[in-house]
Amino acid sequence: MTVDPTVDPTVDPTVDPAQRAVERDVTDRTVASFATAGSARYREVMTGLVEHLHAFVRETRLTEAEWAHAIEFLRRCGDITTGTRQEFILLSDVLGVSMQTIAVNNPVGAEVPGDRRPTDATVFGPFFVDGAPEVPVGGDVAFGAKGVPCWVEGTVTDTSGAPVAGARIEVWEADEDGFYDVQREPAADGGRPPTQGRGHLFSAVDGTYGFWSVLPASYPIPHDGPVGDLLAAASRSPYRPAHIHFMVSGDGLRTLVTHVFVAGDPYLATDAVFGVKDSLVLDFVEQPAGDAPAGRRVEGPWVRTRFDIVLAPSPGAAATSGGNG
Amino acid sequence: MTVDPTVDPTVDPTVDPAQRAVERDVTDRTVASFATAGSARYREVMTGLVEHLHAFVRETRLTEAEWAHAIEFLRRCGDITTGTRQEFILLSDVLGVSMQTIAVNNPVGAEVPGDRRPTDATVFGPFFVDGAPEVPVGGDVAFGAKGVPCWVEGTVTDTSGAPVAGARIEVWEADEDGFYDVQREPAADGGRPPTQGRGHLFSAVDGTYGFWSVLPASYPIPHDGPVGDLLAAASRSPYRPAHIHFMVSGDGLRTLVTHVFVAGDPYLATDAVFGVKDSLVLDFVEQPAGDAPAGRRVEGPWVRTRFDIVLAPSPGAAATSGGNG
Repeated sequence: MTVDPTVDPTVDPTVDPAQRAVERDVTDRTVASFATAGSARYREVMTGLVEHLHAFVRETRLTEAEWAHAIEFLRRCGDITTGTRQEFILLSDVLGVSMQTIAVNNPVGAEVPGDRRPTDATVFGPFFVDGAPEVPVGGDVAFGAKGVPCWVEGTVTDTSGAPVAGARIEVWEADEDGFYDVQREPAADGGRPPTQGRGHLFSAVDGTYGFWSVLPASYPIPHDGPVGDLLAAASRSPYRPAHIHFMVSGDGLRTLVTHVFVAGDPYLATDAVFGVKDSLVLDFVEQPAGDAPAGRRVEGPWVRTRFDIVLAPSPGAAATSGGNG
Repeated sequence: MTVDPTVDPTVDPTVDPAQRAVERDVTDRTVASFATAGSARYREVMTGLVEHLHAFVRETRLTEAEWAHAIEFLRRCGDITTGTRQEFILLSDVLGVSMQTIAVNNPVGAEVPGDRRPTDATVFGPFFVDGAPEVPVGGDVAFGAKGVPCWVEGTVTDTSGAPVAGARIEVWEADEDGFYDVQREPAADGGRPPTQGRGHLFSAVDGTYGFWSVLPASYPIPHDGPVGDLLAAASRSPYRPAHIHFMVSGDGLRTLVTHVFVAGDPYLATDAVFGVKDSLVLDFVEQPAGDAPAGRRVEGPWVRTRFDIVLAPSPGAAATSGGNG
């Protein structure tokens, strides 16, 4: 049967009424078991989860073998997960659940002061590392990562256009081989591989920022585990188009988690995690060797791009920002 | 908001139309990504999963912090899972997903030859061990498990009443302390603890069977992990009422996974995994010391019960069984 979300699964005409009653009873008893939860929000979330998981089982007439396969799939996800490999985030990403959560929490129609549209958000991904080094404005977060030198600059403002001084800008990215530092071999002493292609900086008083890094490459998400099997069964590509991750936060503003994508990448239309938005695809323009921003002299070709960031007000903050932009 | 499964989540009137379009687009793109799957059934199952997971996120307006909590919850489930502790099965059980799957696969309204109703199925649980020892009819599967001696007997028939000879009957249970053998400390050499309270036998030519074991006790499911935290947040009891697990299979017949429960148990109405069905609650009748079935002499009190098992035809089998009952 085709799953049609507009059909009420509890009145599926193809299922015998007595059978339907048995199935509904299991759901009702499970929902009722959460009635004693102390938190109203917990009751609401668990009720929604139970209703939808049960409806999924009912509508697809999930077999016991398929259920066992799902349990084994989750066990394998747990088995392959380590401090630097998070298969459950990959699973959420390839099922579009991460992007749906981001969509719900970054409303496009929200009323904001001023006339600048907040920068679009996208997936967080599994490769962020807390505590990456700070660099000054104009500094280099490559730390030896391989690739064509890449200068990224822009401004951070609020939706009224007022510059945001001291916004914390975390960036992380894959190198030209398509690997994040944490995917490299451990250090000789068994510790984490050296930091490369990640760091943070703070916007200047006028809201401007700029940093050096390398031109990122497109890469496959880790696909030697159960999530890779899931993609293979769907004949889906594991590739993500080249991108640089950003997480930008400022006082009283909604923290923005996003990427910038490289225009022309062959995987923009088939991102394995559904993270691409047109507004985030930027031109990375090739430049000749020679003098370059932040007092740098580059021996070979390099690229530059501009990414102006607009932060929405924090949902909890009073709408008092802006005014001097 | 209250989750009402009869409301089409794609037309939730509280969500701005532009926002609704963004959210629907994420789901549509994810569903479309499975269109290339080679298996039509895989497409169907994944479409249903994606639709329902996304609708759950949309309807509950799941926050990013709640999403992160869910990811961490799954990571912890993986972390605590071992060869003898399967947190993902426990999770499926306490969310009623296991019982919903069983309900879907053991239809009550199905047409079967004959007039005997197939024995009700219930959850498989996480404590089955493949390769438990065989005992003869009348043998003892306690293998030293602590508890009041317990005699279980009955017949295995098909729905026409014809005896099923040579049906394989796997049984497993907790002892009087509420522990399965696999939950005990490992053997001195680090190996699996000794087998207790489990085994298998085959029904006789006339379909009869009988075995000795011990009276099982009610027990809490393992609740020192994330599933225990889930139950605690809902103020739900982790207890299951006392039961003996059965898995019964015969040629051309649907394999039955079920329990028998002990009448009078205080947890029958609040089973943590929703496994109780009235038809499976049996009287375990106390008997005086002395002569007992299968040539045994018992020094103290013992109990006995009768469990007649009716197996449904296998969904794939031609309806040719029965006739001589």
